[in-house]
Amino acid sequence: MIKIAVLGCGRIGRMHAENIHHHPRATLSGVYDINRGASKEVADELGVAEYEKAEDVFQSEDVDAVLIASSTPTHADFIERAVKARKPVLCEKPIDLSLDRARVCADAIRGTDVPIMIGFARRFDKGHAAVRNAIESGEIGEVHQVVITSRDPDIAPDSYLRESGGIFRDMSIHDFDLARYIMGEEFETVSAAGARFVSPRLMEECGDYDTVTATMTTGSGRQCVILNSRRAVYGYDQRVEAFGSAGMAVSENRTEHNARIYASNYTGKAAPLLNFFIERYSQAFISEISAFVDSVAYGTRPPVGLEDGVEAILLAEAAMLSVREGRLVHKGELG
Amino acid sequence: MIKIAVLGCGRIGRMHAENIHHHPRATLSGVYDINRGASKEVADELGVAEYEKAEDVFQSEDVDAVLIASSTPTHADFIERAVKARKPVLCEKPIDLSLDRARVCADAIRGTDVPIMIGFARRFDKGHAAVRNAIESGEIGEVHQVVITSRDPDIAPDSYLRESGGIFRDMSIHDFDLARYIMGEEFETVSAAGARFVSPRLMEECGDYDTVTATMTTGSGRQCVILNSRRAVYGYDQRVEAFGSAGMAVSENRTEHNARIYASNYTGKAAPLLNFFIERYSQAFISEISAFVDSVAYGTRPPVGLEDGVEAILLAEAAMLSVREGRLVHKGELG
Amino acid sequence: MIKIAVLGCGRIGRMHAENIHHHPRATLSGVYDINRGASKEVADELGVAEYEKAEDVFQSEDVDAVLIASSTPTHADFIERAVKARKPVLCEKPIDLSLDRARVCADAIRGTDVPIMIGFARRFDKGHAAVRNAIESGEIGEVHQVVITSRDPDIAPDSYLRESGGIFRDMSIHDFDLARYIMGEEFETVSAAGARFVSPRLMEECGDYDTVTATMTTGSGRQCVILNSRRAVYGYDQRVEAFGSAGMAVSENRTEHNARIYASNYTGKAAPLLNFFIERYSQAFISEISAFVDSVAYGTRPPVGLEDGVEAILLAEAAMLSVREGRLVHKGELG
Amino acid sequence: MIKIAVLGCGRIGRMHAENIHHHPRATLSGVYDINRGASKEVADELGVAEYEKAEDVFQSEDVDAVLIASSTPTHADFIERAVKARKPVLCEKPIDLSLDRARVCADAIRGTDVPIMIGFARRFDKGHAAVRNAIESGEIGEVHQVVITSRDPDIAPDSYLRESGGIFRDMSIHDFDLARYIMGEEFETVSAAGARFVSPRLMEECGDYDTVTATMTTGSGRQCVILNSRRAVYGYDQRVEAFGSAGMAVSENRTEHNARIYASNYTGKAAPLLNFFIERYSQAFISEISAFVDSVAYGTRPPVGLEDGVEAILLAEAAMLSVREGRLVHKGELG
Repeated sequence: MIKIAVLGCGRIGRMHAENIHHHPRATLSGVYDINRGASKEVADELGVAEYEKAEDVFQSEDVDAVLIASSTPTHADFIERAVKARKPVLCEKPIDLSLDRARVCADAIRGTDVPIMIGFARRFDKGHAAVRNAIESGEIGEVHQVVITSRDPDIAPDSYLRESGGIFRDMSIHDFDLARYIMGEEFETVSAAGARFVSPRLMEECGDYDTVTATMTTGSGRQCVILNSRRAVYGYDQRVEAFGSAGMAVSENRTEHNARIYASNYTGKAAPLLNFFIERYSQAFISEISAFVDSVAYGTRPPVGLEDGVEAILLAEAAMLSVREGRLVHKGELG
Repeated sequence: MIKIAVLGCGRIGRMHAENIHHHPRATLSGVYDINRGASKEVADELGVAEYEKAEDVFQSEDVDAVLIASSTPTHADFIERAVKARKPVLCEKPIDLSLDRARVCADAIRGTDVPIMIGFARRFDKGHAAVRNAIESGEIGEVHQVVITSRDPDIAPDSYLRESGGIFRDMSIHDFDLARYIMGEEFETVSAAGARFVSPRLMEECGDYDTVTATMTTGSGRQCVILNSRRAVYGYDQRVEAFGSAGMAVSENRTEHNARIYASNYTGKAAPLLNFFIERYSQAFISEISAFVDSVAYGTRPPVGLEDGVEAILLAEAAMLSVREGRLVHKGELG
Repeated sequence: MIKIAVLGCGRIGRMHAENIHHHPRATLSGVYDINRGASKEVADELGVAEYEKAEDVFQSEDVDAVLIASSTPTHADFIERAVKARKPVLCEKPIDLSLDRARVCADAIRGTDVPIMIGFARRFDKGHAAVRNAIESGEIGEVHQVVITSRDPDIAPDSYLRESGGIFRDMSIHDFDLARYIMGEEFETVSAAGARFVSPRLMEECGDYDTVTATMTTGSGRQCVILNSRRAVYGYDQRVEAFGSAGMAVSENRTEHNARIYASNYTGKAAPLLNFFIERYSQAFISEISAFVDSVAYGTRPPVGLEDGVEAILLAEAAMLSVREGRLVHKGELG
Repeated sequence: MIKIAVLGCGRIGRMHAENIHHHPRATLSGVYDINRGASKEVADELGVAEYEKAEDVFQSEDVDAVLIASSTPTHADFIERAVKARKPVLCEKPIDLSLDRARVCADAIRGTDVPIMIGFARRFDKGHAAVRNAIESGEIGEVHQVVITSRDPDIAPDSYLRESGGIFRDMSIHDFDLARYIMGEEFETVSAAGARFVSPRLMEECGDYDTVTATMTTGSGRQCVILNSRRAVYGYDQRVEAFGSAGMAVSENRTEHNARIYASNYTGKAAPLLNFFIERYSQAFISEISAFVDSVAYGTRPPVGLEDGVEAILLAEAAMLSVREGRLVHKGELG
């Protein structure tokens, strides 16, 4: 059993704590949150230790590995401290809102053999992974075009959005990573469009966008389109399509159940889409823990590394630059 | 070009006349209807001859074959006269409401080499035929269970229902034939249930039912269920499912188009099903004419013969007997 | 927290033990199995007590309620003992293979206010429940026809089948209960057909069938068809369709994920169906525990009572009689 | 009855001739083709006049309107001559490969009251039109993002491609028009990416691309993505998705029939998509003729005008420029 401590007891930290607690090959050694109320609640509920300080986690001999789900500005620092303490890390995205800080972090730990994994959980979704498998197995031939649709069921609170770093760094970042995973080749250009339809005033105020489309191309000319919106009234819209020389693979949306209604003025009406990410990606979050546990147990390289986290931030920054300047951006421009 | 005359210019006769008129390998020589107004209208519209008497059709040298779409009580007589005149026949279902009369007709023409085809158009639907093909090709192995769902979008007028011979002879008869086609083995027992939900008063008056389920078994124990209703508010519900030792084949419903709507309280809402049989089975009716034309042109045995028409009536009669007496009926009981 | 003990540590008992262990409003007090190896393994793994004798469970003050997942012949006895000890019961289906024994059990506890629930988990499946809700809400009007398709992915081991009591009591029993739940009206007649296609020799030897169809009617004439097979090569086929005066509701199959593949000779190919019941009905099993916990906590009548268990056995027995005697059976014939 | 002459008897001209011939409110007065063999064949088959010279069509008193389906370089000239002869025109896309020539044509006929319609048939597809209707009716609110997927089943012959004017003018042009129709607002920017995967050598030689993605934005920031490929091995992939503030409408692909196969290693396998445009858009082509007939009969403005044809060429030219220069293009740059 791998003993994992969780840093951060917000919604997602709590979910990870529970998943670790129930995992057949992991145990939750304890939790930490700068807000002691939050950590106490989780610790009590799951019957595990509550750490007073983050440093206690890194120093504890009872901790084999750490999961970082604290606020974004703490991520890079915690990663560096975990590596120094030789604790394998599973860190929630993004590494940092700043590409520079993410790169400093990458430099700081370069060469370490401590497993570091970034929490791009969607790679572990069985549907999305089946699309990737259809490419790897050769079933759909060489991939030419990828379309990722990712729309939230509703816009987050203003306070969250103000701190989010913008839609590309906060939301699309999952899709940038997924795009690289599905495509299997690095992107070189990004051309993005942004609009303010859901919360125009706040978006204007923050210089942010709530409705964006990003088109990326690889060196060999493969094309990927990402469509994002902060609000899809029909639920959490999560689809991936890969078109290739020998076929197409599509990961469709999931509903809570598969009942359909037929009546005098419609047919096949189903329930709204699963809402929200904790429900939609519940299987993915559990599989993500399993992949991390494997990596810790066998000392192998995690399937999503720090470099993947840096690359996703880079694409997010390129997309933001593209929208702001109304032009196609070459990734190379960002150094 | 095969020259075909159409007897009967009601809704379905008119449709056949148009299909023949537009068919690449057939021409419409002319039309006949006991109601001269109806035949004149069709003849004028399509620019073809109008026959004064049915006998003119059978005697005409300009007629290679006849399509019988007149009222049910005329079918058996017209078939016999057509055979005598050596005109190949495509006759709408049923041969007659009476099993005895149908058998007399069969006896009268026994041994003839004049092609006689019964209009069970559903066999020619590409979806339903694909189910049959999945069995014949071995793709789903040996078939064990067949389910045919066939519900009309709305109940016919009272006057029609009074003359219809009852739901089994009028409506289910298509499904009895389809069941035999899909199953590829004769049925031996029939157990049916009937209810009066759509038009209880009229059904009571006619000793008829509007909502029925019939279960049939073959000699080897294969099972087939037919579900019928005179009214499905969501449209014309036409499905076939064949379950076999190596898989399942299902012919699903068709809609006029494939647009789907997603909104805040539902997902995937589509248009109502195609309504009614002329729209749903438009391809099947055209393919049926092609099959008949082939048979006339090459003198080959039509894919649906008079004996298939008799067998379907037999099953309809067994089903009615089963409902009336509340018991399982062996087909052999009907002679 | 409701403290629940589990009797029986086979595959399904173990699953229930885990579900209770992880349930937010229940705790697993301990487990019992006549095979001490099995109970020790579960007790150790989950860190709970292991009871030496069944009686220890009933006498324990640390047990608020019991879940019976032991072998079928013990069910009725354990239910009676639990009621005597005033422990609420959630008992796996069936109450007993014998209708008489089930009725004796029902008589023995008649009038008790101890909650007794029978484990017909499918009622708790969100898809199937949505069909029921579409009826209760009036969305599809009055229900006229119900079709339940329930096919196992593969036939059970011979040893299991020999003890199973036959397909109707072992497998269809879930569908008989679901049919009553969906229909909301009692059935009066049963006409069933059975065949031996999957394992003909063993079925012959046991006087059992592996491929069956049962048609039931209610007093008002509503019709329900159940289609079962011991082997569907494409996976665990679980569907419910309710057709009513104002529409239709269908609970479709679930797949592990929603990826679809399109290639040169096919489109929309998906993964096989979820296999087997523990995976397909995982949500239902958890919701079932919740319903039981509610009932225990508030002393309310469970949503599936002993009488439902008896009624399902009655229908199973009527179906078996129908197949054996090749006739329609009135439920009333069975007393 | 509106008497229509068809100019051009290639594959699409022939199809239009047949559709007019069978149309209830139109008659085919005759056909013309510079290749007399082609026009004779169609004239003989349909029993209509064969015009020796194009001018005969424009001068004939027996011609109420003309359908231009001749080779692209003749379109603009024929439009101008038809207008001069006061014959309403339905002209196949594109008006011309050159934006300048199309504009000259537009100038030449400016102010005429002769109905001129451009053959963007996809607007008349019931599925795609249902997406537009969902926007117009307010059902999905204000549209924010549109995705059009349009992939041919296989690449056209080299000779065709060499004369086609490139993928944007030849193939995407339908999608540019559809995008405008669905969006209901003009586009201002175009950013496109192109690759050579299907026929790299020929594409290189022609300076053309076979796999392209174009992203366009409107003045209000709405986004539209078009995905094209010259070869989708699974068939003719034709989909439209409109995402709006109150929902989403999607026009899905059509298959020849709706049979699905389930087997041991897959579920829901369907037939390949309809192939090719004459089959997929058969309903649309007939509805297009109806719309044209309405316009001629009532002297009303056709639903797709010459200006729509010009605008689509403009977007095609912008897209080509974007790919060639690797930058976002403002439509205004093209004058």
